Amino acid sequence: MAELPKTNIATSDAESITVRGRDLVNELMGRHSYTEVLYFLIAGRMPNVGETRVLDACLVTLMEHGLTPSAIVTRLVADNVPDEPQAALAAGLLTVGNVFVGTMEGCARILKIGVETDGDAEAYCRDVVEAHRQERRALPGFGHPIHKPDDPRPPRLFAIAAEAGCEGRYIALLKILSAELDRRAGRHLTINATGAIAALLLEIGLPAESLRGIAVVSRAGGLVGHLLEERATHSGRAIWKLVDDSIPYEDPEA
Amino acid sequence: MAELPKTNIATSDAESITVRGRDLVNELMGRHSYTEVLYFLIAGRMPNVGETRVLDACLVTLMEHGLTPSAIVTRLVADNVPDEPQAALAAGLLTVGNVFVGTMEGCARILKIGVETDGDAEAYCRDVVEAHRQERRALPGFGHPIHKPDDPRPPRLFAIAAEAGCEGRYIALLKILSAELDRRAGRHLTINATGAIAALLLEIGLPAESLRGIAVVSRAGGLVGHLLEERATHSGRAIWKLVDDSIPYEDPEA
Amino acid sequence: MAELPKTNIATSDAESITVRGRDLVNELMGRHSYTEVLYFLIAGRMPNVGETRVLDACLVTLMEHGLTPSAIVTRLVADNVPDEPQAALAAGLLTVGNVFVGTMEGCARILKIGVETDGDAEAYCRDVVEAHRQERRALPGFGHPIHKPDDPRPPRLFAIAAEAGCEGRYIALLKILSAELDRRAGRHLTINATGAIAALLLEIGLPAESLRGIAVVSRAGGLVGHLLEERATHSGRAIWKLVDDSIPYEDPEA
Amino acid sequence: MAELPKTNIATSDAESITVRGRDLVNELMGRHSYTEVLYFLIAGRMPNVGETRVLDACLVTLMEHGLTPSAIVTRLVADNVPDEPQAALAAGLLTVGNVFVGTMEGCARILKIGVETDGDAEAYCRDVVEAHRQERRALPGFGHPIHKPDDPRPPRLFAIAAEAGCEGRYIALLKILSAELDRRAGRHLTINATGAIAALLLEIGLPAESLRGIAVVSRAGGLVGHLLEERATHSGRAIWKLVDDSIPYEDPEA
Repeated sequence: MAELPKTNIATSDAESITVRGRDLVNELMGRHSYTEVLYFLIAGRMPNVGETRVLDACLVTLMEHGLTPSAIVTRLVADNVPDEPQAALAAGLLTVGNVFVGTMEGCARILKIGVETDGDAEAYCRDVVEAHRQERRALPGFGHPIHKPDDPRPPRLFAIAAEAGCEGRYIALLKILSAELDRRAGRHLTINATGAIAALLLEIGLPAESLRGIAVVSRAGGLVGHLLEERATHSGRAIWKLVDDSIPYEDPEA
Repeated sequence: MAELPKTNIATSDAESITVRGRDLVNELMGRHSYTEVLYFLIAGRMPNVGETRVLDACLVTLMEHGLTPSAIVTRLVADNVPDEPQAALAAGLLTVGNVFVGTMEGCARILKIGVETDGDAEAYCRDVVEAHRQERRALPGFGHPIHKPDDPRPPRLFAIAAEAGCEGRYIALLKILSAELDRRAGRHLTINATGAIAALLLEIGLPAESLRGIAVVSRAGGLVGHLLEERATHSGRAIWKLVDDSIPYEDPEA
Repeated sequence: MAELPKTNIATSDAESITVRGRDLVNELMGRHSYTEVLYFLIAGRMPNVGETRVLDACLVTLMEHGLTPSAIVTRLVADNVPDEPQAALAAGLLTVGNVFVGTMEGCARILKIGVETDGDAEAYCRDVVEAHRQERRALPGFGHPIHKPDDPRPPRLFAIAAEAGCEGRYIALLKILSAELDRRAGRHLTINATGAIAALLLEIGLPAESLRGIAVVSRAGGLVGHLLEERATHSGRAIWKLVDDSIPYEDPEA
Repeated sequence: MAELPKTNIATSDAESITVRGRDLVNELMGRHSYTEVLYFLIAGRMPNVGETRVLDACLVTLMEHGLTPSAIVTRLVADNVPDEPQAALAAGLLTVGNVFVGTMEGCARILKIGVETDGDAEAYCRDVVEAHRQERRALPGFGHPIHKPDDPRPPRLFAIAAEAGCEGRYIALLKILSAELDRRAGRHLTINATGAIAALLLEIGLPAESLRGIAVVSRAGGLVGHLLEERATHSGRAIWKLVDDSIPYEDPEA
């Protein structure tokens, strides 16, 4: 028989549900917001007011950006599977992948190592920028196809962190990294939202491994809005026709 | 070319992102919690303090219930796909289906019709209970395999709604329905968490069509915790072995 | 501890794998085609030559229809998750839902009941058509948005079934149903591919409950082609831009 | 407006469907097996008899291995979402990830480079084995937790390839790699099924990028069997209870 690990997450009996040592009904429901309990499930302790404000800001930042692939996918699946809407949401959430959102974890790793090694920050950032240039890899957390020259979200996120008393070494290091990148590239590349969120979530003590999950939660909320609009406008059918009409077939032998 | 609908959800340009008419950076980020913006995306207006408290309580209620199918699925997929964690979350969320969570929508529909027809509530509930008995269908929002005789969550949810000034006709009707069900069945069947949540979300003005999405958001938060524990304990491998060892093969010809 | 069912599907030890009583290595691999083993896993016996030909024809029929929602979804997810391609395939397969493909099961149920009751086929079909008209529901297996007045696939499928010696009462009943529908509607509505496939799969002894799975297998093969083309053409990025540019934002207050 | 690529895959009009230049109805349906059309969609040409036999053998090999994570996940989701069975299949297919099945692509890449560089095969294999040892990475395509000392599937796959006239340089290189690995490790590690399949699929001219897709198609067929057994045995409910009963909760503060 398999040797099984234990779980620290939850248990229940007929009369109660216990979540990480707290009574769900009497200690969590009605006493803590969703954002606080999300933090609690990830970090194992309740956040203070500042940490909650920062996590809320990060969650709100990624909820909506219009007709992104996640929204398009959710609409197309919802049109085909109207009676099990979680299928449309799950399909949309599958797009929250390494190419765009994974940059959050990549940036977090760079910041984490930099803060942990605790040496000359400029030298560390110079080396990181150089290594990425040599391997012709984009530096995670920088650049945006639409928001040029500057993504409007990071300055606001930094201001929120400062107001919340959560501005520390990760944000500082990200700014140094940004300066080094600009210097070496000879032009300005914006810190983008995923880069700034990576720094903020590290500031409030969340592990790099939780970042994708937080992005998924955020996006899930946004996709509920698209699901409801899809019911009203039936955009899925129109998107299908638009794409099919716009991508011409060419005989492979031609 | 296809005739395309419009969207009311979001747009962006180089310098700004607009979400349902509000500036994301200056009007939403740092000013509203995730729960408030979720409400805003669903209802088209910001919730008041009481409505936010009720939505938070509903979201927190469904986040965790231990090793449910959603958590088991997320752990198994995470063990096989560690580098794209949204795949494990999406797979787990696919379990948020009609059999268990869909009862929220079923219960909401009954409550909505009852409140809208606005006649004799007892008579309405009696008819609903009778119709379900005759078709041998379970009344959605009632009964629980573990929480017997009473699910501990609904009384707390009703208390939170009352404190928040959000206790109205939907909750009242659910209680009448409960009394009629018990009377007709000749025994007590608990109002369960999905039934109570259905009533509370209707009280705060959310449409029945949004309920599944809200359940998915709630569960997504809980599954982030399971994803992190999976990285630490590798339960997925052990669950696989446990199940494989426990379900014996029998020759189909035997 | 839970009472666990047995499985008839497969078992293995260090030296062998047994699938439904057969030795995978010596009795299945190299001796039977994928289609034959698929039939074997569903029906519990190997198909004869005619049954294999019919199942192959049904599988081939649904593999490709160009830029359908399943293909668009797979392309969008593949663009975001290039390193775990099963995520793109799984997302695409989620579109194989009740709205379009579920008509296969709906049609199969009608045919199955009709053949089992074994009475006056014309009368049965007349009643079925009438019941759908009165409930204003489309008759599953009929009509096609593009293939008007006739879907070219059903006649070919019927011819293949006849050649394979698998044309029997289900196909006959489908044709009577078609005649009754046309008579009652006063115009011609084509039998579509899902209707014809439903009849053919019943003719070769497969259960109605297996039809969705067979459609998923078929579509999975087609989507592999889209996955490979996506790697070459990066259509996902272009589809995103196309949709985002084509669906205008309108202020919800406006 | 976006610049859109073309597609070589399929197009249709009212009377016909064209797939990669062939008429679906008259040239593919009833004339070619599912396996042949799968090859055609991937490679752009129809396979010969030997290539078809090899692809069929590879597809059959991975269809079934009992209660693997993919089967457990499919059963759990099917229990919660009985009316949209593609959700259960899609969830199960999400497990076809880099950890186990991705070794097919890893092994294929090693074989491809080795055959393309076309130098001293022993020296190439020695270098590959050494590089993996130094980075403490498992060599993809070797070793199996159950099938020790030898996976029974590869010898059969090699025999099928030989009979089909498809045994060439990739299989030869895989065998040299195996000998080098054993020599360097000082003990025998089996070539596993994914390693052998990688070699066979390269022998029949399929690109390494198609391997995951082929594995997904194969597994999809196997999961249809689990879906049907789930309907009969309701194992999902029992698996849930088994796992929940077997993984004890431990207070995180304890």
